[in-house]
Amino acid sequence: VIVADLGEFGLIARVTGRLGAPPPPAGPGDDAAVVAAPDGRVVATTDLLVEGRHFRLDPGWSTAYDVGRKAAAQNMADIAAMGARPTALLIGLATPGDLSTATAEGLVDGLRDEAARTGAHVVGGDVVRSDTLCLAVTALGDLEGRAPVTRAGAKPGDVVVLAGRLGWAAAGLALLRSGATVGALVGALVDAHRVPSPPYSAGPALARLGATSMVDVSDGLAADLGHVAAASGVRIDLDVVPLSEGVSIEDALHGGEDHALVATVPAGVDVSEFVVLGRVATGDGVWLSGQRVTGGFDHFA
Amino acid sequence: VIVADLGEFGLIARVTGRLGAPPPPAGPGDDAAVVAAPDGRVVATTDLLVEGRHFRLDPGWSTAYDVGRKAAAQNMADIAAMGARPTALLIGLATPGDLSTATAEGLVDGLRDEAARTGAHVVGGDVVRSDTLCLAVTALGDLEGRAPVTRAGAKPGDVVVLAGRLGWAAAGLALLRSGATVGALVGALVDAHRVPSPPYSAGPALARLGATSMVDVSDGLAADLGHVAAASGVRIDLDVVPLSEGVSIEDALHGGEDHALVATVPAGVDVSEFVVLGRVATGDGVWLSGQRVTGGFDHFA
Repeated sequence: VIVADLGEFGLIARVTGRLGAPPPPAGPGDDAAVVAAPDGRVVATTDLLVEGRHFRLDPGWSTAYDVGRKAAAQNMADIAAMGARPTALLIGLATPGDLSTATAEGLVDGLRDEAARTGAHVVGGDVVRSDTLCLAVTALGDLEGRAPVTRAGAKPGDVVVLAGRLGWAAAGLALLRSGATVGALVGALVDAHRVPSPPYSAGPALARLGATSMVDVSDGLAADLGHVAAASGVRIDLDVVPLSEGVSIEDALHGGEDHALVATVPAGVDVSEFVVLGRVATGDGVWLSGQRVTGGFDHFA
Repeated sequence: VIVADLGEFGLIARVTGRLGAPPPPAGPGDDAAVVAAPDGRVVATTDLLVEGRHFRLDPGWSTAYDVGRKAAAQNMADIAAMGARPTALLIGLATPGDLSTATAEGLVDGLRDEAARTGAHVVGGDVVRSDTLCLAVTALGDLEGRAPVTRAGAKPGDVVVLAGRLGWAAAGLALLRSGATVGALVGALVDAHRVPSPPYSAGPALARLGATSMVDVSDGLAADLGHVAAASGVRIDLDVVPLSEGVSIEDALHGGEDHALVATVPAGVDVSEFVVLGRVATGDGVWLSGQRVTGGFDHFA
């Protein structure tokens, strides 16, 4: 069965049937959803994923379920990076008519299940036909009364801390491209490429610790800390870049898509739950062991 | 200049430079935006528009500015149909690399200016490359303390009222397809196809009057009232379908994209600001002068 056989309303019914009932006052099926925003603000972010550019559904690459989870994860990581808790997803699916219904269902199931990991729900969406398969995901979140943690608050003397993994997704993608498929390590890295595992709860936790800035690593540690340094008007000195087996220093510095969270926290705060990467200083740029680090990923190139 | 020359960050800078500074606590440039949700809830909806299916940028059809305004309008009409006031837009742009920068800027300007008509702002977004030009728009809104007006609350005895236009966009599209371009009437209808003019403020106004159900006419009056009848478990009897010069009864009954608002309101309420179309009765379906009306638009067909 392909989605064109279902028609718009059939496909919507099929999709909403898989989502379960979100808690009131939310819900698909009306002109718009209503989502709780208990503290009087809502955090919102949107991302597009295009087949052939951000994911591949070919055999051996990603399943539709993986892609759905990844699409949810990268959006909810942006919510966590503000110090917020994800509450809701809206999903837009632009698809060729000959997409199999099973693939559409896999995408939706992945979005639903990754959302459930944070307590969020899919509350609405849209389906349209397009020659290019594209997922548009919007995530909403709740700051629970805290101030948002932006990229612009890092201060000289702050400590730079990491939650989550660096370079795994990049190493896994390189393995997939090389055709390597054997062994537990390869499997773990490839899985990290297929479905990131952002440390969602670290976002609110770091905000509670008084984080002065935070970002999720989507374009690579160097590039994303570069945004923090530029927005905050500071220099960031890295002393340590944690490496895992199979992950090179280039993967760890320049690989995106693991959606680790990196924050700056005032000195003296107990950051024993996190990995200390370095310190904030006066100046500009990102430096590792006294050398300036540049580069990053341009999604548009 | 084409967007590929600017790169991701150059294009983002170009776009955000055109948006102006939204009021705090919102703003593009961080991992996510923060939007006020004063009454503790946020209304949210998302729509995709694909070139060649939902719009055409060919000479004589729509300008990029028109398409941007239309994309904002159709999303904000969904917010208004819940009885809410639009507050913010997030925009996703999936584009071929050879899109002219002027076209990208036209899209953004249109989104910005239509948002400004309701007091909303563009607060965030994403740009990615794709072989197919696609706009993904998410609109957020504020219920200002009122209960959301869903499709499910119409009750027998309620009056059916209309704010806005019916069939103009459909008549304008037919004129564009036929090649007609001359005259004030043709111009008005074609303009209505290019840029709808939803009666945004009628959404909150009808909610304040105690509307029991509301919907925006995106798929045609018959189809959208059919959703209300089904969701509410009622029959809707239409006595009047207002026609304008150049608009046929088929346009008015089955043409979407004008994003008029249709609501049901308890009998006895002063609805003199609106056009009375008919009444809610027991039973099912939508009826005009005693005949059952069927049909509508399947966006996916």
